[in-house]
Amino acid sequence: MMKPFQLAARENKKEDTIIQVTGPGSSVKIGEGYCTIIAGPCAVENRDDYIELAQFLAHSGAHLLRGGLFKPRTSPYSFRGLGKEGLDILKEARSATGLPVITEVMDVRDLDYLVGEVDILQVGSRNMQNYALLDQLGQINTPILLKRGLAATIEEWLLAAEYILARGNGQVILCERGIRTFEPYTRNTVDIGAVALVKNLSHLPVLVDPSHATGKWDMVIPVAKAAIAAGADGVMVEVHQNPDYALSDGKQSLTPDNFRKMLKQVTDIAKLEGKIMNTEEKM
Amino acid sequence: MMKPFQLAARENKKEDTIIQVTGPGSSVKIGEGYCTIIAGPCAVENRDDYIELAQFLAHSGAHLLRGGLFKPRTSPYSFRGLGKEGLDILKEARSATGLPVITEVMDVRDLDYLVGEVDILQVGSRNMQNYALLDQLGQINTPILLKRGLAATIEEWLLAAEYILARGNGQVILCERGIRTFEPYTRNTVDIGAVALVKNLSHLPVLVDPSHATGKWDMVIPVAKAAIAAGADGVMVEVHQNPDYALSDGKQSLTPDNFRKMLKQVTDIAKLEGKIMNTEEKM
Amino acid sequence: MMKPFQLAARENKKEDTIIQVTGPGSSVKIGEGYCTIIAGPCAVENRDDYIELAQFLAHSGAHLLRGGLFKPRTSPYSFRGLGKEGLDILKEARSATGLPVITEVMDVRDLDYLVGEVDILQVGSRNMQNYALLDQLGQINTPILLKRGLAATIEEWLLAAEYILARGNGQVILCERGIRTFEPYTRNTVDIGAVALVKNLSHLPVLVDPSHATGKWDMVIPVAKAAIAAGADGVMVEVHQNPDYALSDGKQSLTPDNFRKMLKQVTDIAKLEGKIMNTEEKM
Amino acid sequence: MMKPFQLAARENKKEDTIIQVTGPGSSVKIGEGYCTIIAGPCAVENRDDYIELAQFLAHSGAHLLRGGLFKPRTSPYSFRGLGKEGLDILKEARSATGLPVITEVMDVRDLDYLVGEVDILQVGSRNMQNYALLDQLGQINTPILLKRGLAATIEEWLLAAEYILARGNGQVILCERGIRTFEPYTRNTVDIGAVALVKNLSHLPVLVDPSHATGKWDMVIPVAKAAIAAGADGVMVEVHQNPDYALSDGKQSLTPDNFRKMLKQVTDIAKLEGKIMNTEEKM
Repeated sequence: MMKPFQLAARENKKEDTIIQVTGPGSSVKIGEGYCTIIAGPCAVENRDDYIELAQFLAHSGAHLLRGGLFKPRTSPYSFRGLGKEGLDILKEARSATGLPVITEVMDVRDLDYLVGEVDILQVGSRNMQNYALLDQLGQINTPILLKRGLAATIEEWLLAAEYILARGNGQVILCERGIRTFEPYTRNTVDIGAVALVKNLSHLPVLVDPSHATGKWDMVIPVAKAAIAAGADGVMVEVHQNPDYALSDGKQSLTPDNFRKMLKQVTDIAKLEGKIMNTEEKM
Repeated sequence: MMKPFQLAARENKKEDTIIQVTGPGSSVKIGEGYCTIIAGPCAVENRDDYIELAQFLAHSGAHLLRGGLFKPRTSPYSFRGLGKEGLDILKEARSATGLPVITEVMDVRDLDYLVGEVDILQVGSRNMQNYALLDQLGQINTPILLKRGLAATIEEWLLAAEYILARGNGQVILCERGIRTFEPYTRNTVDIGAVALVKNLSHLPVLVDPSHATGKWDMVIPVAKAAIAAGADGVMVEVHQNPDYALSDGKQSLTPDNFRKMLKQVTDIAKLEGKIMNTEEKM
Repeated sequence: MMKPFQLAARENKKEDTIIQVTGPGSSVKIGEGYCTIIAGPCAVENRDDYIELAQFLAHSGAHLLRGGLFKPRTSPYSFRGLGKEGLDILKEARSATGLPVITEVMDVRDLDYLVGEVDILQVGSRNMQNYALLDQLGQINTPILLKRGLAATIEEWLLAAEYILARGNGQVILCERGIRTFEPYTRNTVDIGAVALVKNLSHLPVLVDPSHATGKWDMVIPVAKAAIAAGADGVMVEVHQNPDYALSDGKQSLTPDNFRKMLKQVTDIAKLEGKIMNTEEKM
Repeated sequence: MMKPFQLAARENKKEDTIIQVTGPGSSVKIGEGYCTIIAGPCAVENRDDYIELAQFLAHSGAHLLRGGLFKPRTSPYSFRGLGKEGLDILKEARSATGLPVITEVMDVRDLDYLVGEVDILQVGSRNMQNYALLDQLGQINTPILLKRGLAATIEEWLLAAEYILARGNGQVILCERGIRTFEPYTRNTVDIGAVALVKNLSHLPVLVDPSHATGKWDMVIPVAKAAIAAGADGVMVEVHQNPDYALSDGKQSLTPDNFRKMLKQVTDIAKLEGKIMNTEEKM
């Protein structure tokens, strides 16, 4: 049966897409055969904490720094990020650590100053079907990390990727971040089967975000390990020096210690799976 | 318990919000005590068909014309609407019938030419949490019809309304359009209880869109009737001269004959409920 | 396309199934063209309260008495019903009011003493796919009210009915009682579209249980009205003299006063729909 | 906060429950620190094929044989298992291989002849809240494998276990088999987070059934690996000599070759996790 997605389909591109992202001091390959660790706080909250954490993460072995400038928040009264003002902090962290950075974009009008400054642009769950945004992202040359919508089918997710691919930007990284179900104990339900399935259906890289997917820091390590065991090309996790004081998503953030623990265990599984940790190759 | 939404909460505004929308030849009140019928094709496809249908609908008793210029489509390869070019057709239909019109906006950049030309702007399900768009809509003076996201909780829906209200635009109309569940026989599952609940929780008007909610034309009439019986302030339905040839959503469109049938039956229930059909008052 | 259910399908039996249930003092027809009101407490708690309530309900216009002897409870530590001991109370209420009665059966071994004593046997949501039970119910001559499973598709529900029909018992009444979704504000989500759809797909009667479906007494009236407007053949509601003191499901129980209010409003819609209230015909 | 389940809660029993199951030729420990592989066809279809497959599985390293005698099928017209007649085949396979066996029970009346003959009794998803059955299983001395209901919350699942524990049978093994979501590409959605969470909340062993969970044989291996990486105490998989000719669930069955492949990869992860494969200890 013909798939409704075409450019995203493995039938139409047999070789796996490997996306190379280059920071000032290191280069990361995202895709089959590699394992990529993206880490950072949910949101950039202030300069000093972010730089300190970034250095810790770089030193510990993270490959990419995440740092939200614009936070899509369910309530208009929640902390919504530093916005454009945070960009200088992100750039400073990038220089200081040498690592490439990723941040979320929610508004087409912000592309003017974000493009060229960050290494990957993220589309969040709520905007997976924001077609005005996808159309625009298809016309730039920056890799896009496309999170699955909170109730998007696998087909809709791949069709959202197709919007970007169809406009000419072939650098799309998929990111499973949990789907909405009836289960109230966890924030979302990680669709681990989707990881295996999308690796079959598509040539695009697939990451997993166990922090948003579970909403509980003590589930992040087991789910991150499961992700790699199921075939994911890496994970994106939230880390915070003081999760209890985080302005957003504290409950799901790893402490620095737990981040190191996770990295060790994920690396073991990645090696068992024959994946190259991006840090190894560098050496 | 304090609700996370404030301006949208009935506790903070006891009287029901009634939104008055005025076309060149008629005026419509949307909210408690009134029953409003919005009708039209899913998308404006071409001038002649749209004008002909608009005149039929006006003549039959519809209160507002719907007509999509920008269609959010799951696949980038589907018909995505006439775009800006369709606006003249919509304006012509507005003049020809005297009825106010509603159309969907997906991109903040389109507001420049849409504001002032249409009577209600619709935010579709996929954009219910497009906060860049909501923020902007909160700063204009046009009524907004805010569809519930396909997997949005009632609280998230009211918080999306809160984004608009918090920026200063108090004219928000909620629209239940079905939620995503496991049931494959229908496109979505109409959450009829949400209608009753939101009428309790909030002072804002609530409509139901039985066409998108069910995806099957022969369920539109019973669900439209149920909506009014449950307390909805009106319905928005898709009508097409030739549903089999519609460029989008044909399966869920009523024929003109079935539209008349629906209008008759919905009117009977609305009267039983003590609601004023907007057409009556006009006279 | 051939439906997987056959005896339940309208294709194979054009005329609507009307099930006649006869109590000591009245006879009720359940199916197309009639509107049936089943009422009572969630569980029979003690003799005096149940008899008093039964008399109130009979006097107010209910057509059938419900009274749970065995309550399927999520926790083994909750009140699980009076069991076999409650049957005498139910029989006394039946004699005292003249109304037929319905009770739930959960265990095939209870059929020995229930068959012949109650007028309808109910299969609850949790047992919709308890095939040992369905097989047995197919071999008796008592009408069965088959509730939809909490996450059963319409097809699975009709196939569960098919189990009973296939064994020879053609008297199956379907009952929509809400499905499980992600929405936390209501206990379940009433699938009002399923009512319209099942009336098309099958010749079997369809009722709605707005009490279990919503879990909130103040949503029972609007949802009951919506049910009839959408084509349901009646409703089953919970009523309790003192909802605050009910041993189970108090929050969703109507007071006697609200029951009367509901009955009045449901009757108005039923008449508009051309349905015969069972009480009318009796006279 | 007090959990509604008590006997199942880790708060009330700190040490992990390890359940020992002994076949004629081997003994298996199920619980923390061990990895258990249960394998077999969905249903026992005929003697020769079942015995042949059982010997292959025993030889390859499976620890327990599964073989359904009673198959809960959505349609009454599907193959429903050999029933009581199949028990002799199961017993023969048990003797021939020395492995303990597990089979599903759906009807309390079947316990008479099943108890004492099989080593574990399974409660299927559809019967997770069949309380008549759970009550009875709580009064015997056979370990129970309790599958999660297809839309059961984690709390409801643990409360179903509580029914068995509260009656005196402490040998309950939980089994995640996928939950129902909106996603149509897979049969169910494996809730991998639930595995990690239940290992925290409870002392009971947790297995995963990747065959029913995904419905696709080529997803069984990655999901089985993910299960172990997330902390599961083993997996239960379907194997069939000729999946294309299976009377039930062929699409999700592994071929013998793929079973060996899975066993190898699952063993590697289990060892990395410090788990003892039951076969090792035997030696």
